[in-house]
Amino acid sequence: MAAPPEPPMSRTVYNFSAGPATLPSEVLEEARRELVSYRGRGLSVMEMSHRSSAYDEIHRQALAALRRLLGVPESHSVLLLQGGATLQFSMLPMNLLPSGGSADYVLTGSWSQKALAEARKRGSVRVAASGEEGGFRRLPGPDELDLDPAAAYVHLTTNNTICGTQWHELPEAGDAPLALDMSSDVLARPIPWARVGIAYAGAQKNLGPAGVTLVVVRDDLAERAPGDLPAMLDYRVHAGKGSLYNTPPCWAIYVLGLCCRWVEARGGLTGMAAAAERRAEQLYRLLDGGDFYRGTAEPAARSRMNVTFRLPSEELEARFLAAAADRGLIHLKGHRSVGGIRASLYNAMPDAGVDALIEHMNDFRRREG
Amino acid sequence: MAAPPEPPMSRTVYNFSAGPATLPSEVLEEARRELVSYRGRGLSVMEMSHRSSAYDEIHRQALAALRRLLGVPESHSVLLLQGGATLQFSMLPMNLLPSGGSADYVLTGSWSQKALAEARKRGSVRVAASGEEGGFRRLPGPDELDLDPAAAYVHLTTNNTICGTQWHELPEAGDAPLALDMSSDVLARPIPWARVGIAYAGAQKNLGPAGVTLVVVRDDLAERAPGDLPAMLDYRVHAGKGSLYNTPPCWAIYVLGLCCRWVEARGGLTGMAAAAERRAEQLYRLLDGGDFYRGTAEPAARSRMNVTFRLPSEELEARFLAAAADRGLIHLKGHRSVGGIRASLYNAMPDAGVDALIEHMNDFRRREG
Repeated sequence: MAAPPEPPMSRTVYNFSAGPATLPSEVLEEARRELVSYRGRGLSVMEMSHRSSAYDEIHRQALAALRRLLGVPESHSVLLLQGGATLQFSMLPMNLLPSGGSADYVLTGSWSQKALAEARKRGSVRVAASGEEGGFRRLPGPDELDLDPAAAYVHLTTNNTICGTQWHELPEAGDAPLALDMSSDVLARPIPWARVGIAYAGAQKNLGPAGVTLVVVRDDLAERAPGDLPAMLDYRVHAGKGSLYNTPPCWAIYVLGLCCRWVEARGGLTGMAAAAERRAEQLYRLLDGGDFYRGTAEPAARSRMNVTFRLPSEELEARFLAAAADRGLIHLKGHRSVGGIRASLYNAMPDAGVDALIEHMNDFRRREG
Repeated sequence: MAAPPEPPMSRTVYNFSAGPATLPSEVLEEARRELVSYRGRGLSVMEMSHRSSAYDEIHRQALAALRRLLGVPESHSVLLLQGGATLQFSMLPMNLLPSGGSADYVLTGSWSQKALAEARKRGSVRVAASGEEGGFRRLPGPDELDLDPAAAYVHLTTNNTICGTQWHELPEAGDAPLALDMSSDVLARPIPWARVGIAYAGAQKNLGPAGVTLVVVRDDLAERAPGDLPAMLDYRVHAGKGSLYNTPPCWAIYVLGLCCRWVEARGGLTGMAAAAERRAEQLYRLLDGGDFYRGTAEPAARSRMNVTFRLPSEELEARFLAAAADRGLIHLKGHRSVGGIRASLYNAMPDAGVDALIEHMNDFRRREG
């Protein structure tokens, strides 16, 4: 059967979406080449039995690459699950918050509030700090954290996509293990595993496409979970089956694996962290270089993943967004709950995208400022 | 950027896997054409914000196509979730088995046993019938069902992939709503919605790729669920948000939507049901036309989706499978728990695949019989 004519493949936009987010062009091209017939096997990854040797290799390589890239020690299991960070908001306390125990939650934005609300349904929780009064524009300092030394875990969101803040140093929580929602900065920063009980992340920002969720959990904590959990919500079950307890989201895991290879070829975690810092610094320097653009996060808490800022008026912001879209810079609108502009700069954002955004910001300021 | 050279795209195998299973070639070609740049938008579906208008259209069209194809009445919500049928084994009783109530389970194979085991963790359940003693080779007759007239629901697996049986008429359960695991025959048979409280199906057999799960639930039943369910496990939450409560598995839903269009162009549910019957009948006729191949399911319960049979010896079965693979007929091995041969004939299996299998069966019998 002859292949149909090819449409133009050009990537005509830079996509600053907060997630699902841009993926590496090289990964998309490879996925495209292999889509109908995976490496000459005559069938697509989407059609492979999850018990076949071809898929098994894809699956194991993705898990191994994540362990290697993130430097996960043998004490922790690497799991690929479904349901996104939102399901983890519930699974985490179901597994790690024992009856009679209590967990601490640090509130730094909308996502940590959602995590708290779900944990409240499962057991006893404390708010160790909340930045809500200040509109989540800053993060609590070490002396503002009211931590329970006996907490089962201390939950925090390492990067906050809506207000554009990020913990650059994770707080000390004594003996209590950290429980980290890393959906928006996983694979872009080192992780101090010795202090981490669990880290989880939806894939669709820094890891790959939507539909697969990374969970890294310390085995001895997972072992203490109640015995009667639903199998699909029990970390032990997934760890014992190598994330093949039931049919996994094979295609999403395959693309995630391609993304891991792409990251490894570019210096791994260290390379990604350096690139994230460089990209964000370029933008923050521009924000700080005048009064036209105003960064919304407190400088010490500024995120390297989501750069949020305002213009002098909402009317100018609307024109800024329209003019950006005209030159192929899309999804720069801030979250509807806070407005303004948000540039999400995850691992796959090319430097050329940031250059194009800076050029647009300079042009727009010259014209309208 | 010039497109790299294309590898040969030929589909060199017929894939009889029980799931994930073969997809229509036309769907794969379309997904491939649009993978890097969706309909000229310059980005992939895998990179689209799930709040963007482009993705929203894909999402709504998939939901609407499923409702139309399956003839779902307004009394029921159509949901696209994650976690597969296995998560539904738990979500179903969490939502629809009230405290103090009881549910009936009809055991016709390994999957209904798993559903029962998860329900037992959540509340009171009864076994209305079990075919385990007969190795699940037949289905219980109407007078073998010990149904509780007050059951919250009666659960059954409409098609059993391992032993190759299928309910051609769903049993009468009085006022109790049916709860149907239709993972392996959804979209290949009509559904009597007036009697159905909930039907669910992992996508990876008859609907699309792995990573998305269809749930159709009667709204008045979902409304009776406890108030403190985890949000991600509460049907009401997903129904209220149009299956966009959190980031959905966008790519899997997109491909599922392409599959729905493919099905609609081929006569919809009626067309699929007729094709399934025709394909299966061809194989059963061959099984019944001699002693070399022996069908394992009782004839009245034979599945149109999974045709299971034995050869005179395991040694012959191994040679049959090897010779089949040599001519590109793959994944014909029966489930490891029962052995033998299994040909899965879901909606996307081309007639030419069945023809090739029949040719192989005739050739092999002539040579070895």
